[in-house]
Amino acid sequence: MSSVITVDEHRARILAATTRTALVRLPLAEAVGRVLAEDVVSRWPVPLFDNSAMDGYAVRGVDATKGAVLRVVADVPAGSALDPTIGAGEAARIMTGAPTPSDADAVVPLEHTDLGTVITADAPATITVTREPTAGAHIRRVGEDAPAGAVAVTAGTVLGPWQLSAIASAGHARVTVHRAPRVAVVSTGSELIDPAGTPTRGQIPESNSVLLAAAVRSAGAEVVTVTTVADDESALIAQLVDLEADAVILSGGASVGAFDVVKSVLDGTGTIEFGPVAMQPGKPQGFGTDDAGRLVFALPGNPVGVAVSFEMFVRPALLTMAGRSVIERPRVTRAAATGWRCPVGRTQFLPAVIDADTVRPATAGGSGSHLVTSLALAHALAVVPADVDRVDEGDLVEVMVLS
Amino acid sequence: MSSVITVDEHRARILAATTRTALVRLPLAEAVGRVLAEDVVSRWPVPLFDNSAMDGYAVRGVDATKGAVLRVVADVPAGSALDPTIGAGEAARIMTGAPTPSDADAVVPLEHTDLGTVITADAPATITVTREPTAGAHIRRVGEDAPAGAVAVTAGTVLGPWQLSAIASAGHARVTVHRAPRVAVVSTGSELIDPAGTPTRGQIPESNSVLLAAAVRSAGAEVVTVTTVADDESALIAQLVDLEADAVILSGGASVGAFDVVKSVLDGTGTIEFGPVAMQPGKPQGFGTDDAGRLVFALPGNPVGVAVSFEMFVRPALLTMAGRSVIERPRVTRAAATGWRCPVGRTQFLPAVIDADTVRPATAGGSGSHLVTSLALAHALAVVPADVDRVDEGDLVEVMVLS
Repeated sequence: MSSVITVDEHRARILAATTRTALVRLPLAEAVGRVLAEDVVSRWPVPLFDNSAMDGYAVRGVDATKGAVLRVVADVPAGSALDPTIGAGEAARIMTGAPTPSDADAVVPLEHTDLGTVITADAPATITVTREPTAGAHIRRVGEDAPAGAVAVTAGTVLGPWQLSAIASAGHARVTVHRAPRVAVVSTGSELIDPAGTPTRGQIPESNSVLLAAAVRSAGAEVVTVTTVADDESALIAQLVDLEADAVILSGGASVGAFDVVKSVLDGTGTIEFGPVAMQPGKPQGFGTDDAGRLVFALPGNPVGVAVSFEMFVRPALLTMAGRSVIERPRVTRAAATGWRCPVGRTQFLPAVIDADTVRPATAGGSGSHLVTSLALAHALAVVPADVDRVDEGDLVEVMVLS
Repeated sequence: MSSVITVDEHRARILAATTRTALVRLPLAEAVGRVLAEDVVSRWPVPLFDNSAMDGYAVRGVDATKGAVLRVVADVPAGSALDPTIGAGEAARIMTGAPTPSDADAVVPLEHTDLGTVITADAPATITVTREPTAGAHIRRVGEDAPAGAVAVTAGTVLGPWQLSAIASAGHARVTVHRAPRVAVVSTGSELIDPAGTPTRGQIPESNSVLLAAAVRSAGAEVVTVTTVADDESALIAQLVDLEADAVILSGGASVGAFDVVKSVLDGTGTIEFGPVAMQPGKPQGFGTDDAGRLVFALPGNPVGVAVSFEMFVRPALLTMAGRSVIERPRVTRAAATGWRCPVGRTQFLPAVIDADTVRPATAGGSGSHLVTSLALAHALAVVPADVDRVDEGDLVEVMVLS
């Protein structure tokens, strides 16, 4: 893999090696963001029983003519197990959602009686009907929404708050989902110091592990370890041994330099290969499956290159592992608010800001991969094809929207 | 508040009572999704020092004419503290990001020498220059990106992976942010049973706490407790006492029924008021600040009403508490793929699916608040104004996009 390959080729190689994680059964509260692995069927009809759609009075329709005075003989709150007998000229006070008595065939809402809309704590002795109900009025029938055994939520659904609610309503407290991918983040480089430290000549603050760990979590995966290691082969090897992870993301040391320890340790291990990808930033890339079956992403060391590489290669793989079918960021087309230069022969991914109708570089004056301050402002990546050498003001540009 | 108010009026009342959470200093890894409370300035110039933009050779430009043979006298890896002397006819091998020696005024990239693009482990004795560098070529100058003291990330920024990376690069390991709002979720109703249980007459599975807890987390807030209580005043009061929360979200018991315990316990406490809001679903609402200063949201009990109420009232408040300025979901306009009926006098919020160019109800055949299965499929809410009694196929409809 020493010849240059395209972004699409590298991505296809990654996705071909990516498999879904194992299935686990989780309580609903822990399943947010996971992908449902099998259809969830309702354990019962929905609604579960005939119930009132309104606060009001359950009646025998034949009695509830306009002006009729009915004796209130029972009170049926929501959750009540009562099934009171309703005789001629009688009614039961009933709350929304409460089971309608077997003797009743309609509900007269509060506001169709002489009692207005506000119920008092104690039930009245009688009510006067001010509007006659139609047959079956305001009764939700058992199973009218769905029969027992109906599929409530289909396999492949990404579980958000609403979907989890529907699963609980279908009678399930746990679900079978693809386990969250477990990811180790390893930042490499002898030049890296803690951001709060004081750099001496040649040292720079370590920022990639923060970016990658946050990005992994934002993609719904689990971060198992975050470490920084020096450019030392034995230190790196020690770090990688026994990692309980589905994927390892390394940054730094992937280029052609003599001190590129990540490459020297990993190149040729399992199916791992290193080589240039025709993109800016992010040219030096390594990828493959190690002997333990973990996906290994070796990204370049500069922060913008890391950000772009995560978006283009790691995130789609993590979403695929998690069972998602939609793994692409949405893309829009916008006119460039200003011009900028692009490298010929490499696809450019430029941290960008989308204004109302236009897109512009997040930092004016440069597209270099070292312009980390551009990351602070960017919420998108402008994607410029490899055969374009410059974008002029007004040119239409494709933009990946990240938030 | 017993007369009907509009959605906008209720929302305005909520936002007027909502204040930002206290400031905390957090490690970067814990600050994902939080809002930066003060500008972050760079502790140093960016880049920190003159450094090489390429793998190659640091040279004295005057020597590096095309065809010149230079002696390699030093090796400068990234992170090196070395500042080797470079004499006439000499060069230092240098890696991307490594500090350029003080004697050098240009970098000749590997590919502009006779050595191709692949560096061997040991430095060669000599190199031949195949393309002459311009003055200062491939040297990134100290501070060319930003001077020391420059604002790297501005107050008000929502901290995602890229922003956290920029803060680390600016020399900070911790940031001052608005604390995540702490939220208690209380589901009320004597009819509620565990979803895995077996309901008897009148009982239904409890699903609102799962929905609300997941929705709270999705809004970047922290769930401190999730409980279900029966319709029992003393049980509810016991649950609410000593809650360590900024906000309490209750579902159920907010209507006009005699057994609406939430209302009977809370109405008139602090500034809490109950009353109808002109919307479907979600008409019965209670809101206010309790004596302990907590925001109290009393939502209706049906799941779709809870989902809509969270979106319209709770989520904007939680985002405001967290310091966010953008608190609205994006809205788009789509043609209705099919018609449906709407309640006159109430704004309708209908769980919906957006297809390519159209919007349709998530469940065909009904807009009732009890159609919880619609939540499984929906990823949007169609918003139909109060004065519209039906949407016909082809009508343009405003849609809130939720994912």
